[in-house]
Amino acid sequence: MRCRRCINVNEFELISKLTKSLPTNAFVVESAGDDCAVLDSGQPGRYLLFKTDAVVQGIHFDADADPVRVGHKALARCLSDIAAMAGRPIAALVTIALPKEFDAEYVRKIYDGMSVVAREYGVAIVGGETTTNPERLLISISLLGDVASEKCVRRSGAKAGDVLFVTGELGGSIAEKHLHFQPRIREAHWLAENFDIHAMIDLSDGLAGDLRHILNASKVGAEIRSPSIPISRAAKLQARTKANGKSALIAALSDGEDFELLFTLASKDAVAVLDGWKKNFPDTRLTCIGRINAAPGLKIRDEHGVRELNIHGYAHFS
Amino acid sequence: MRCRRCINVNEFELISKLTKSLPTNAFVVESAGDDCAVLDSGQPGRYLLFKTDAVVQGIHFDADADPVRVGHKALARCLSDIAAMAGRPIAALVTIALPKEFDAEYVRKIYDGMSVVAREYGVAIVGGETTTNPERLLISISLLGDVASEKCVRRSGAKAGDVLFVTGELGGSIAEKHLHFQPRIREAHWLAENFDIHAMIDLSDGLAGDLRHILNASKVGAEIRSPSIPISRAAKLQARTKANGKSALIAALSDGEDFELLFTLASKDAVAVLDGWKKNFPDTRLTCIGRINAAPGLKIRDEHGVRELNIHGYAHFS
Repeated sequence: MRCRRCINVNEFELISKLTKSLPTNAFVVESAGDDCAVLDSGQPGRYLLFKTDAVVQGIHFDADADPVRVGHKALARCLSDIAAMAGRPIAALVTIALPKEFDAEYVRKIYDGMSVVAREYGVAIVGGETTTNPERLLISISLLGDVASEKCVRRSGAKAGDVLFVTGELGGSIAEKHLHFQPRIREAHWLAENFDIHAMIDLSDGLAGDLRHILNASKVGAEIRSPSIPISRAAKLQARTKANGKSALIAALSDGEDFELLFTLASKDAVAVLDGWKKNFPDTRLTCIGRINAAPGLKIRDEHGVRELNIHGYAHFS
Repeated sequence: MRCRRCINVNEFELISKLTKSLPTNAFVVESAGDDCAVLDSGQPGRYLLFKTDAVVQGIHFDADADPVRVGHKALARCLSDIAAMAGRPIAALVTIALPKEFDAEYVRKIYDGMSVVAREYGVAIVGGETTTNPERLLISISLLGDVASEKCVRRSGAKAGDVLFVTGELGGSIAEKHLHFQPRIREAHWLAENFDIHAMIDLSDGLAGDLRHILNASKVGAEIRSPSIPISRAAKLQARTKANGKSALIAALSDGEDFELLFTLASKDAVAVLDGWKKNFPDTRLTCIGRINAAPGLKIRDEHGVRELNIHGYAHFS
């Protein structure tokens, strides 16, 4: 269900290069390269956050998926990106591209799913465009949010000596969670209000891949501790039943669509963030999984020692 | 090439009803129902404009269309909606959903086309997302703009006694213009800066259909003069060659994708707007095509008298 794997990776890299020289202007604080684009529209002390994301039938959801869940997922994915920058969602626009044969009741249920999550997080849905995509349903969402400029958390602020935290439990999202996860909007606000969060990202490509985004943006390295990785029950079950040919740990490191938060802060704040978290979010785990190093590279420590963690090569290593 | 015609109209009406009870919040000035959503983010004297639009291969452009033109069209359509509210475009996000077999060079050309129009109108492209749509290319653009709140022109401000103007020439866009039109951003600014424009819309569904949007939103009627309608050379040529089975006038009234501006202002300003326009935009026509009436309904006057103009029935009438 990860769209990028369906197309030759080199082609995506080529496109990624193309998008590095796109037109810019004086409004742009952060273009492509973080969870949302960040814009300064001139309002003192605030930035706008701007994000778009699409889900495609057969790629991000199956044809028989509950349309309420599909609507939920389409909007919640964008909300998760606003959360990753500690932002507040304002308004969403919805483009639904419908196959030739479609059921209006199915579309109503998609809007129902979006509306519930929109109300939950205070988002207005300010337009619903409908077009045609003859072979399959595609939903593209644009989301506008804002954030106090001093509270906006980027990927690029991680510092050597920081500790690395992750919310929730990882891996195996495809079994169920990817269709009904809750974006960590409230958790991200609480973190940014109460602590100096240095860097944050939402986990959409898998822990190892998304951590690399923070490391690359911040020009640092990291070491994570294998026994500390919070592995979901779904990932453990899939490993036991050999559903996907991965160990549970590999799933937790590499599965996409966890939509949890990964963040770093100064080690002096580690105990306080854990204590405060337990009081405020008793039903969600918060786990310290490692630390940020000055030396580049991503390492993993287990009972055998420390090794380089390569998202492609890791399967052979474990 | 008009997407809505590919799907049963009743189904679209049903969806349109669904989208009337979507979640809202205190930021929303105007939701679905105008060219853009209008938001008040708290910046004194300014509104944000928010718009999304998608083009689909085989629906909005042919598979053999020049990809530079396709990119141009995808972004220019959204810019035309910002123009319709006299807004300033700020930033765009691009989602390209690629078929299984695609050519990276083709994608580069799409970005080239978008970049040229973006630079022309000062828009930043702040993200380029790529996903998969196995059977055909789909491009979804989100555009953020802003406007001085007192200069924001809505569809709903037309008043009885207003005169009705249209820019450019109408009809036959499918022959060529739909792939290389220039959004009327500069013209709209000039109009809003120098005149009290009561209502405005960009022509995407055809003059008759889009004029009805103004009339419905403003709760007024209109009478247009048949001999005044500015008919494009393409529409005349198509009529002569019987390319589409329409008279040139019918094409000018009903063809989509003209992307011209239709606006109303007080009749006392009619001469001044025509004089000023000629000086500022000598290469683009501006035509007074009729007037706004208090009585509802859309009428057309020709040498035989005045009749109701029904967009579905008009073909039989002429």
